[in-house]
Amino acid sequence: MATIVFCSVTKTAQTTARRCLMSHLKRLPTSGDPVALLPGTRWFSRGFSVRFMSRGTAGRSAGGRTRKGALALGGAAAVTAAAAVAGFLANANHFQRAEMATKVAQPAQESEPEGDILERCRGFMSPPVTDVGVLEERKGEMRTRMEMLIMETQADFCNALQEVDGGTFKVDRWQRNEGGGGISCVMQDGKVFEKAGVNVSVVFGNLTEEAARQMTSRGKVLKGKDGKLPFCAMGVSSVIHPKNPHIPTVHFNYRYFEIEEEDGTKQWWFGGGTDLTPIYVNKEDAFHFHNTLKEACDQHHPQYYPDFKKWCDRYFYVRHRGETRGIGGIFFDDLDSPSQEEAFNFVKSCSRTVVPCYLPIVYKHLNDSFTDEEKAWQQVRRGRYVEFNLVYDRGVKFGLATPGSRIESILMSLPLTARWEYMHEPAKGTLEAEMLEVLRKPNEWV
Amino acid sequence: MATIVFCSVTKTAQTTARRCLMSHLKRLPTSGDPVALLPGTRWFSRGFSVRFMSRGTAGRSAGGRTRKGALALGGAAAVTAAAAVAGFLANANHFQRAEMATKVAQPAQESEPEGDILERCRGFMSPPVTDVGVLEERKGEMRTRMEMLIMETQADFCNALQEVDGGTFKVDRWQRNEGGGGISCVMQDGKVFEKAGVNVSVVFGNLTEEAARQMTSRGKVLKGKDGKLPFCAMGVSSVIHPKNPHIPTVHFNYRYFEIEEEDGTKQWWFGGGTDLTPIYVNKEDAFHFHNTLKEACDQHHPQYYPDFKKWCDRYFYVRHRGETRGIGGIFFDDLDSPSQEEAFNFVKSCSRTVVPCYLPIVYKHLNDSFTDEEKAWQQVRRGRYVEFNLVYDRGVKFGLATPGSRIESILMSLPLTARWEYMHEPAKGTLEAEMLEVLRKPNEWV
Repeated sequence: MATIVFCSVTKTAQTTARRCLMSHLKRLPTSGDPVALLPGTRWFSRGFSVRFMSRGTAGRSAGGRTRKGALALGGAAAVTAAAAVAGFLANANHFQRAEMATKVAQPAQESEPEGDILERCRGFMSPPVTDVGVLEERKGEMRTRMEMLIMETQADFCNALQEVDGGTFKVDRWQRNEGGGGISCVMQDGKVFEKAGVNVSVVFGNLTEEAARQMTSRGKVLKGKDGKLPFCAMGVSSVIHPKNPHIPTVHFNYRYFEIEEEDGTKQWWFGGGTDLTPIYVNKEDAFHFHNTLKEACDQHHPQYYPDFKKWCDRYFYVRHRGETRGIGGIFFDDLDSPSQEEAFNFVKSCSRTVVPCYLPIVYKHLNDSFTDEEKAWQQVRRGRYVEFNLVYDRGVKFGLATPGSRIESILMSLPLTARWEYMHEPAKGTLEAEMLEVLRKPNEWV
Repeated sequence: MATIVFCSVTKTAQTTARRCLMSHLKRLPTSGDPVALLPGTRWFSRGFSVRFMSRGTAGRSAGGRTRKGALALGGAAAVTAAAAVAGFLANANHFQRAEMATKVAQPAQESEPEGDILERCRGFMSPPVTDVGVLEERKGEMRTRMEMLIMETQADFCNALQEVDGGTFKVDRWQRNEGGGGISCVMQDGKVFEKAGVNVSVVFGNLTEEAARQMTSRGKVLKGKDGKLPFCAMGVSSVIHPKNPHIPTVHFNYRYFEIEEEDGTKQWWFGGGTDLTPIYVNKEDAFHFHNTLKEACDQHHPQYYPDFKKWCDRYFYVRHRGETRGIGGIFFDDLDSPSQEEAFNFVKSCSRTVVPCYLPIVYKHLNDSFTDEEKAWQQVRRGRYVEFNLVYDRGVKFGLATPGSRIESILMSLPLTARWEYMHEPAKGTLEAEMLEVLRKPNEWV
């Protein structure tokens, strides 16, 4: 797992930061061999997305319980690394700048300890969607473990952003009439961030067979009782649009689905990804971002990074422009192998790279000066971001078409401001043209 | 047909305007009885659009020729009313303000004269898409008559906008590899208009049966030779986004389709509409706009305005917001009755109302002062405009999904700037809240 070293400008903050960092590093898992190749797993391409397919029995657990083998991996220690990162960032005040450096821990072979539910909830932006009592009762179930992870990821990221901006997130808890709800954290017109949204949602109810089929990107056919399938879907998602055109936009989303078939069999899968949308090419930033993701992926499978990087470039593609939305990152869906436990551990590693992927880039460019022309180019790129999100993004399309969706949470990914200029084409040899070239032909950054 | 009276601030302009107007009015058709009810035609609602269905044989013409009865209606006089409006607007300089007044001519029972092709082309923004020689050869065919009408509509509207703005349209002629092309006129960052686009396209080639089915809003099944159907589609469309939040955005589109089936039968139909998107409610403007459209519709069928007004409210509906895009106008599709000639005459009346619908409103609010808050509200409404266009608009969706489309012409409907504020809700009792109320529950304006 990757982590980051901040260098503060004040001695007090520096000391606090180092102390927290050391304490954080000590808690990281350090033993175990690299995860072996997964012989039952393959990826293949079709159309605009690389599909993930499992040949084995992974992705199924009987009668609502996670499998014995998976549960047996549960660990014992007290504090999660994510919480440590959150604490670290909450304590180290007034950083003006950070060096970009990554430190990779050894592969996590065993599950990390998940700690006391109530204690962990104290660090969240709001009480979790599911009642704490219910979470404690179902402590070992994947839906509880995942809800805790997404709440933690939200808190870590919001704290990190508040720290750098100086502003505060507006926290909205909302309920869904059909079952479940969410927590939307939005900071608008801050010092650093034009619009920053970090959303958690945990929804459940019944799906029709057709809706269930549409929820899987591979169009899996699922059989329901009287045509209905009880489901549970949860995720954390975020889009951050900074003011300064030298600070890129970032997006991430980590999600988990469970659908119960007629015979009580549970289908489950994970999805997610993190991707960067810079306004100008910066190779050092791109390397840092992709390398941090690669290191997190490599702990779990050597093919994860190359395959999910390709999938990301294909998914975030504005087809009518012939451009990718940004410089990519990773994207995956329908991940239901090699085991629920291992898939969860991978998603955990990914969600914990969000802060170390992005924050060093924010700190690095915090005081970069910019011209009106650079700001205008940012606004044009924002327009393309809107085009992708409204025309192609599966999550947005599904959300807008679903009655009872909370529209403001779905569309909080849109920038505060955007611009559409007719026939905009940067002059050859400019930095704007360089950016377009990269978007038209995705690079290998690591 | 509706027309407008301008009152200039300078005596010279006033005199010129009056002279032009009188000359224009003299040329309008004044004889004939109102068009009788069309017993073979009905409209019915389903889902989010009102469908138009013909029971008779209208909408078919054999072997590529327009029907004899239709051609027999062709007239004799020299100058079209549209050209007269264009000339009028081009000659009367430096208007600062116009009174809003409409004058309705008698129903046009007979076809108006269409004049010399070459002579008419002189007033266009560019030579037409189809070679002038070809147009002259096929003078009597509907595709020629419609191409001339859309070119004229483009010129009339562009001239009227240039007149009020003082700026000049950038004119782009473009070709489509698969057949045909278009003329895009765009004025950006003008004195009055933030972005004004008026586009003509005339495209032809072969469609698959599936694509042909998708082109009709009623999903008509058409039989092609070896699965292919020669088609021709043309239209004029425009979106105008002014700078001043007291001047509404306007959109119109008038189009014609021809598809040839296996047995040589030609299916044809017209579609179109004009609708207004104000930022603030102004009942006088709304009345003027709708009434001008109603008067044009009433010349052709008493049900056209009420039915097409409803269709417009249903079509321009941002479902996920529960709001219409604006205050509507008229919208229709698949119009293939009572005869090709009569349908064309209706479309001609509609396209000639564009200037009298909109320009008086522009002149009226030209010098209205506005606050930063009003400008911000305009930007939020622009965001909703983008949402409709990218998520729901059939034309945009079809265009973006069609290989070889000219993306810049399709997306020129997007505003220069837009804004998305999280959880934006105007305070009760404000003018912004009044606008929202109207969008949530469409009014009858006339």
